[in-house]
Amino acid sequence: MKEARVIELTNEAIASYYKEEIVSSDLTKAILYSVNAGGKRLRPLLFLLLLEGFGISLTEDHYPIAASLEMIHTGSLIHDDLPAMDDDDYRRGQLTNHKQFDEATAILAGDALFLDAFGLLATSSLPADKIVQLVKLLSDAAGSRGMVGGQMLDIKGEHQALEEADLVAIHSNKTGKLLKYPFLAAGIVSDLPKQDIERLGKAGQLIGLAFQVRDDILDVTADFSELGKTPKKDIVAEKTTYPSLFGLEQSISILNQSLDDALRIFEEFENSHQFDAQRIRTVIERLRLDA
Amino acid sequence: MKEARVIELTNEAIASYYKEEIVSSDLTKAILYSVNAGGKRLRPLLFLLLLEGFGISLTEDHYPIAASLEMIHTGSLIHDDLPAMDDDDYRRGQLTNHKQFDEATAILAGDALFLDAFGLLATSSLPADKIVQLVKLLSDAAGSRGMVGGQMLDIKGEHQALEEADLVAIHSNKTGKLLKYPFLAAGIVSDLPKQDIERLGKAGQLIGLAFQVRDDILDVTADFSELGKTPKKDIVAEKTTYPSLFGLEQSISILNQSLDDALRIFEEFENSHQFDAQRIRTVIERLRLDA
Repeated sequence: MKEARVIELTNEAIASYYKEEIVSSDLTKAILYSVNAGGKRLRPLLFLLLLEGFGISLTEDHYPIAASLEMIHTGSLIHDDLPAMDDDDYRRGQLTNHKQFDEATAILAGDALFLDAFGLLATSSLPADKIVQLVKLLSDAAGSRGMVGGQMLDIKGEHQALEEADLVAIHSNKTGKLLKYPFLAAGIVSDLPKQDIERLGKAGQLIGLAFQVRDDILDVTADFSELGKTPKKDIVAEKTTYPSLFGLEQSISILNQSLDDALRIFEEFENSHQFDAQRIRTVIERLRLDA
Repeated sequence: MKEARVIELTNEAIASYYKEEIVSSDLTKAILYSVNAGGKRLRPLLFLLLLEGFGISLTEDHYPIAASLEMIHTGSLIHDDLPAMDDDDYRRGQLTNHKQFDEATAILAGDALFLDAFGLLATSSLPADKIVQLVKLLSDAAGSRGMVGGQMLDIKGEHQALEEADLVAIHSNKTGKLLKYPFLAAGIVSDLPKQDIERLGKAGQLIGLAFQVRDDILDVTADFSELGKTPKKDIVAEKTTYPSLFGLEQSISILNQSLDDALRIFEEFENSHQFDAQRIRTVIERLRLDA
């Protein structure tokens, strides 16, 4: 299936969830404002293209899994932008949720996306034991054991000189685990043996690292029109980042090295499994930056 | 099992979840501050005492279900108290989470409780198809289709003259659905037929209504030491409440009538099922207020 169509069907899975059982249309409007802000859908795309790589035809069973992941990601962006957190006015080139609406609405929109995600995930008609595994993994990736825990480390680390190990702890939790999740989830849905799922997870971890290093680099090098949000935020918040620790050039080579290592894992899978890495490779190559 | 012990085991299920895989000890501390603030654990108690009423011996399978429900309730209290929402300084007689820590921490503590709850729920070793049903129900009760949707209606309804139907829409979602959930969940875990689960849900709905009317009444009649939070908040926010619409006396009779109706459903279950309503009755009788 074409990439654009995969994204479209993921978007439809989210949109259709918010067409039913509407309690507050104000809330639904605020949720969809951020959902439809034009994200790249990287996480659902990784999950769905991995499944296709393993020869699985995408069906109604898979989009709710992809969609729930994107919902949690979107909820986290809404909360990260709040005045008490990163205090951002723009995201993806448009006003942040609390700027477009108000703070209370933005808090509730994020809360709803977090809570609704699991309900949508549970609508997948895959075998129940797989869904329970995915619920557990998604919760671990997103909650205090993952993303939210990492966001707390990140806030506490502002205006402090951190070492590489601290930076790794922040990033592997704040962004890494939710980027690793689509790899683990694809392994579970594809019925891979445990050690293969772990190996896939390793690739996901490397891509998570690459993604964060890339984000740190772009904060320094890109302007508003490229970022869609305020640049140089890390410098203002005196955050320790890859460029601040290692310089730009070495950061770019860490980024490229991580992507290379991840691609090598996919090659292994191509040699040892019925796996076609071509399309996932295309998505990953897009994450590169020129030195 | 004694009520105090049931509560203790529910608390232990939450506490033990936060002893493992700690990413940020600051976050864990903030979460446990609110978890351990001495709530009555009404929702888990309703669930677990209903199970015992149906002759089920409580085991490790059941406490994660009870605990996850309390976690979502606690998360919602933390967010409701935020400056952008109800702006409360006290809750359960102690400083609210954002007053004890700060706003960013309180936002993240609530987020984590919402996201972690589903992970803990998924650790129950009940049959996976039941867990998936519970995940769906809990999400619907808590997210945009329930509690969060109702909270949005509540905020939008401040400083406005509402009618009874509006008030019912707010309360049935904001507090009603999460109070109905333990009844539906107990029905599912006890393998009741669908129409019996619905009938149990009806009792839960009545208790949810009673609980909200009671809350509205206490906001007017109780002082800080009885409430553990600032009284007369509804009047300040110009909220339409049961006492403002119907007066105190009639509100108390609505409360008692709802409890009576719920108790009648339990009597039916006692007559037609292997059900012992004695202990759930004791919990419910505590919700009464004198005229």
